[in-house]
Amino acid sequence: MAVDTRFYASLGVLTLESAAALTGAEPVGDPATPITAIAAADQAKPGELAFLEGEGAGQPALSPDLNVLVVGDAARGRVPEGVSYLVARQPRLAHNIIARALFKPRHQQAQERVALSPSAEIHPGAELGAGVVVGAGAAIGEGTVICPNVVIGPGVQIGRNGFIGAGASLHCALLGDHVTLLAGARIGETGFGVTPGPNGLEDAPHFGRVILQDHVTVGANTCIDRGVFADTIVGERTKIDNLCQIAHNVVLGRSVIVAAFGGISGSVRVGDGSMLGGRVGIADHVKVGAGVSLAGSAGLFRDVADGETWGGTPAKPIRQWMREVAWLAKQTSAKKRD
Amino acid sequence: MAVDTRFYASLGVLTLESAAALTGAEPVGDPATPITAIAAADQAKPGELAFLEGEGAGQPALSPDLNVLVVGDAARGRVPEGVSYLVARQPRLAHNIIARALFKPRHQQAQERVALSPSAEIHPGAELGAGVVVGAGAAIGEGTVICPNVVIGPGVQIGRNGFIGAGASLHCALLGDHVTLLAGARIGETGFGVTPGPNGLEDAPHFGRVILQDHVTVGANTCIDRGVFADTIVGERTKIDNLCQIAHNVVLGRSVIVAAFGGISGSVRVGDGSMLGGRVGIADHVKVGAGVSLAGSAGLFRDVADGETWGGTPAKPIRQWMREVAWLAKQTSAKKRD
Amino acid sequence: MAVDTRFYASLGVLTLESAAALTGAEPVGDPATPITAIAAADQAKPGELAFLEGEGAGQPALSPDLNVLVVGDAARGRVPEGVSYLVARQPRLAHNIIARALFKPRHQQAQERVALSPSAEIHPGAELGAGVVVGAGAAIGEGTVICPNVVIGPGVQIGRNGFIGAGASLHCALLGDHVTLLAGARIGETGFGVTPGPNGLEDAPHFGRVILQDHVTVGANTCIDRGVFADTIVGERTKIDNLCQIAHNVVLGRSVIVAAFGGISGSVRVGDGSMLGGRVGIADHVKVGAGVSLAGSAGLFRDVADGETWGGTPAKPIRQWMREVAWLAKQTSAKKRD
Repeated sequence: MAVDTRFYASLGVLTLESAAALTGAEPVGDPATPITAIAAADQAKPGELAFLEGEGAGQPALSPDLNVLVVGDAARGRVPEGVSYLVARQPRLAHNIIARALFKPRHQQAQERVALSPSAEIHPGAELGAGVVVGAGAAIGEGTVICPNVVIGPGVQIGRNGFIGAGASLHCALLGDHVTLLAGARIGETGFGVTPGPNGLEDAPHFGRVILQDHVTVGANTCIDRGVFADTIVGERTKIDNLCQIAHNVVLGRSVIVAAFGGISGSVRVGDGSMLGGRVGIADHVKVGAGVSLAGSAGLFRDVADGETWGGTPAKPIRQWMREVAWLAKQTSAKKRD
Repeated sequence: MAVDTRFYASLGVLTLESAAALTGAEPVGDPATPITAIAAADQAKPGELAFLEGEGAGQPALSPDLNVLVVGDAARGRVPEGVSYLVARQPRLAHNIIARALFKPRHQQAQERVALSPSAEIHPGAELGAGVVVGAGAAIGEGTVICPNVVIGPGVQIGRNGFIGAGASLHCALLGDHVTLLAGARIGETGFGVTPGPNGLEDAPHFGRVILQDHVTVGANTCIDRGVFADTIVGERTKIDNLCQIAHNVVLGRSVIVAAFGGISGSVRVGDGSMLGGRVGIADHVKVGAGVSLAGSAGLFRDVADGETWGGTPAKPIRQWMREVAWLAKQTSAKKRD
Repeated sequence: MAVDTRFYASLGVLTLESAAALTGAEPVGDPATPITAIAAADQAKPGELAFLEGEGAGQPALSPDLNVLVVGDAARGRVPEGVSYLVARQPRLAHNIIARALFKPRHQQAQERVALSPSAEIHPGAELGAGVVVGAGAAIGEGTVICPNVVIGPGVQIGRNGFIGAGASLHCALLGDHVTLLAGARIGETGFGVTPGPNGLEDAPHFGRVILQDHVTVGANTCIDRGVFADTIVGERTKIDNLCQIAHNVVLGRSVIVAAFGGISGSVRVGDGSMLGGRVGIADHVKVGAGVSLAGSAGLFRDVADGETWGGTPAKPIRQWMREVAWLAKQTSAKKRD
């Protein structure tokens, strides 16, 4: 996925040589190789810089179009022939530094205290409350209600017949029709990606988007972070309760239910029609099938196949969990009787 | 409880016949029976449409005043004589469709970017910060402080000597005196009610209110949803910490403590003086007595009698939970020594 | 720590006698002893009123400068010679009443709907979005971006190159350079301190601050409460995810990671470089060493030494927890085979 310039302003182009100077990395290959954008290693096109961590093993196959890379010393051998590359002590950190030199999220630009940008396209059949702020290039469809004090960032697209509750905010987001956000929902903030750097922890920049398909509902004060390079996607008619956290790069299917305090970590997939009870947590990169039920308070660390019901922490098939709970209670009440 | 027209605008009146046409349901009885409002089946007055799910068993007794109902095929036999009714494949969904044709929440109406509605009654001894938005027919009492960028929906009533923190929002809510909401609190959003429909999940509309009695305190970014037909009620001097979720139709007694991340599901009752530790979750419809203590992280799925102390997930009496924890630790450390 | 008058306006001075009249407490000693401020008992300077609870045992040593105190009947014997004191039935409640008579948080003062106070110092190189509200005496440094509809309370100091996301709010807070707050973060609200009073629960007032050191990042809708008398402190480069709760008087070290739904109760200490997984909860006053890892969903009730890894609820060393989980699963699946 290319970086969406509605959300991220381009700051110019680097070369392998200038990127090396910027990061202190060792350049190998044609120093004039242009670096125009950034991408994940399996999706990079020519000019899009990707990175490999560690020895580069266990990662998805490199994109055949990739022509410029940043790696650590241990992964030199994994660089395909003809690809120019940088060797850095901390490849992800170097990649972050270069990314920040190439793009800047547009919501960091001055808005000069103009509440409605003249370049926003607001349908005359949309209703805007007092105190609403709409950024440059944003669009709001017919019949959509924007409650007071909502903030809509540059480039955000909202379809028809939507409802955005009071004080909510949206950045780097594309919304279908009939999408409802309740008050205080936070869509498209930067995700939680922390990288060790020479002086301590660093934030990893995020260049993806949030996509909310038709008829999605998002509860009050719920947060849905934008992706790192790819998108965070919520499928049609999926319903998310209050105070949930949907991390970067998550993909939820259609008609998924996420009850209050649901916490879905980075890159998790959840299939159509699955139901997550209150306070369910899912660890990063876990894959949950379609039609799965997770009992309230479940803490899930493993993949779950279609149609299964799991519970407990760490979560397991519900019968096993209930058996453990019952057995433990029985043992200790027997103990008591001795 | 009748629908409160300060919060919900009436869109007109239906008949059994027009409601049948709207929903595709089969009408039985007088086709001219007027449908003027909606209600729960145990509280309906003449003209207020209620519904029965499934076979209608295990539900509260029907109101004697009820005269119009929507049921599924399996519950035809439970309709009292003289009551006109609709037979729908999905009674709750049909009820939702009819409800939406009868009423519209007032905060969906255009506010024409007027921050303070001319019809709001704001006491001259109230203090309003910059960016505050107050809807039509709202009232704010003497000595109440409204911090900047707060949104107060149409019809909301706030008593004297209250304090509403920055960026909080209130809809469909009645507040007593000395009520404190910290920043970002979300009062009166629609609750999380999801119904399967022909195309996938549908949101159930909510027509109730939130009532916060005198001296209630609500923490930052905490959410208290309004009731479906009835009210969500928080009793005098009850204190709720940050980032809690109080769902639709919950009733909390007086001087209840709810620590951070408390999650109280729909229709739960909690008695006076009970204390809920951090991250306590309570499943829907559970009844918690007075003077109950729930240990931090407890996940409660059953009723608890007055004065008891419970912990664990699923929660049980605290001694039993502690015994289990200690016994399990002992078994496995013995194992280790073998 | 003295009360910071940038955040709390002084309302005058009391004497032992007038404070006794206000609270119904019994004065012992010089009735003219001035009470000019409030403090914790181990830090009080002359004129700063402190309190002892219960018998006053198990509390830190009294400050040698302390000269005025409020105690219960049981702690009379612990009052040092020469100290004037009040004897109250509920010392903490009396202390709260006196504190409220001495100071008023400045964000309760009328702002007359002026969005930017003329006494705020906003660097010309700072960027302010539409709808931003800045209180009296606040300061914003060069290169800092304040997104739309942010509320910055009186006296708040924000350093250079910061980023404050849409709709966030700050009160009683001092921020270093390069501090990032994502949308809806709530910094410096009053903490959750509940005291029983004659009519039911009372809120304890808070007179401390929040200090966020350089390069701190705070996630969307996360809450960091101000201290009671002292400060809540987040060390350099500490990174906090969305929807976390950091309570009053917490001190987090440098480069600490707190993942989503982290809940850190009052007065907890966490050492440098510790990592808290998603939904970790820590009970109040617990001390966590440096370089500690807490597994996702851990509920910690005890101190943890440097470098350890703990998990489970109640949390224990990770190997013990994993052994228990595995052993329990084995017992119950063996059971099944019988």
